[in-house]
Amino acid sequence: MVLVSPRNPLNIGAAARAMANFGFSRLAVVAPFAEHWREARSAVGAPELLRNAAEAATLAEAVAGCTLVVGTGTLTYRKAEQPVVPLPGLGPLVEGQLQRGGRVAVVFGPEKHGLTREDLSWCHLLVEIPTDPRQPSMNLGQAVAVCLYELACRAGMAETSKANDEDFKIEEQSAEAHPAQAAAPSGRLELLAGVVEETMGAAGYSPHTMQAANRHDLRLLLRRLRLSERDARRILGLFRRVMWRLKREESGKTGRS
Amino acid sequence: MVLVSPRNPLNIGAAARAMANFGFSRLAVVAPFAEHWREARSAVGAPELLRNAAEAATLAEAVAGCTLVVGTGTLTYRKAEQPVVPLPGLGPLVEGQLQRGGRVAVVFGPEKHGLTREDLSWCHLLVEIPTDPRQPSMNLGQAVAVCLYELACRAGMAETSKANDEDFKIEEQSAEAHPAQAAAPSGRLELLAGVVEETMGAAGYSPHTMQAANRHDLRLLLRRLRLSERDARRILGLFRRVMWRLKREESGKTGRS
Repeated sequence: MVLVSPRNPLNIGAAARAMANFGFSRLAVVAPFAEHWREARSAVGAPELLRNAAEAATLAEAVAGCTLVVGTGTLTYRKAEQPVVPLPGLGPLVEGQLQRGGRVAVVFGPEKHGLTREDLSWCHLLVEIPTDPRQPSMNLGQAVAVCLYELACRAGMAETSKANDEDFKIEEQSAEAHPAQAAAPSGRLELLAGVVEETMGAAGYSPHTMQAANRHDLRLLLRRLRLSERDARRILGLFRRVMWRLKREESGKTGRS
Repeated sequence: MVLVSPRNPLNIGAAARAMANFGFSRLAVVAPFAEHWREARSAVGAPELLRNAAEAATLAEAVAGCTLVVGTGTLTYRKAEQPVVPLPGLGPLVEGQLQRGGRVAVVFGPEKHGLTREDLSWCHLLVEIPTDPRQPSMNLGQAVAVCLYELACRAGMAETSKANDEDFKIEEQSAEAHPAQAAAPSGRLELLAGVVEETMGAAGYSPHTMQAANRHDLRLLLRRLRLSERDARRILGLFRRVMWRLKREESGKTGRS
């Protein structure tokens, strides 16, 4: 589970407690407010998983090893750019990922405004908790509890809670460990996005002013494709080759070869 | 929904917020700590249902009009005297009650120790949230959120959230409104229990020292029977008749008739 910039130490504690209640143990916190984070970790009775939580500077880093990144939040105030899954349907999807040897992260945004559009661009899909439209926005600790309850019950993880430690690892891990048909982890997609973007630039495809927008769309596109690890590496190889040719051509033109 | 002696205003607020999130609106609070209760109700942004919450001196009073009273809490530290239903199985039971015109209350205990054995004697069944045995005890606000999420999703109440106001009424209501096959509300069972106990005393069945234990067991027994409203009234009539005869006999003996 990943918390992005959580603010209230009580909410951090509540999220950690819900994880312990439902048998999850790997927590990562992205860019926390230092003081509040210190307070939450040192609280009396803080569960072990909170003291052992990983800290990451960016969401990209926190989910680099994950093959399925699930964003949370209300869709009342914005239009989703990713597929949206109602929470009761999330269990089977997550279970499928884990059976194929994937790693899953569920990401929660800051209390005030939730995940930003930029944060969401790292997510393969959004999960929607079916709340009343008159009061759609949930408290962070309660949203975490409801999501993890659903996963523990529906994806049958409650029975295998000891295995969760492994299943829900979110740190970087070598791609070699995945079987060929496994999904590409987030970090690999990001590497690919970087090379594709570089190629677009080198080929003069993307005007300079459009770079940020294109980077965003590219990130979404790569996650929509649901690339396997093997295919991601193939495409990466192709683009690296193209880049190499583009560069050689460029240096040939200017006589620097 | 019923909260018994909640202590922490933040938890009261969180419980109320979860109710609003999942479209529930009838809250009753039993014997609250006056100061904390005042603080929770007057908090900035407190949902309307919190300001409109009913106050009751006893749990018996709060659930008097309910035909199904569901207790919550962990069973790690005690043996249940009532049937136990895992939370994912609660939806259909509640839905069935509502379809037969019944009224349902879900009861949450104080933060520190949960519902007492005495509190639970008013419950027809206990619901168990499938938590990890290493950390079974949930935060109050989170337990409320998880239970109401389950009910809103599984019992299909999310779609008919406007009807919930009626469905989840917990105040006393006249038995005449129930169709004949409907379950007897809690208040009717308590009336019956009182007459049965009185009869036991009058018939010399129950030694004086056993009265408290017998009262407890009688309460459980009457809820196990799942009496219909009609049957409860019949049995009540029978016991009243028996009592009348016992009293007449008694006064005959002492020559006071």
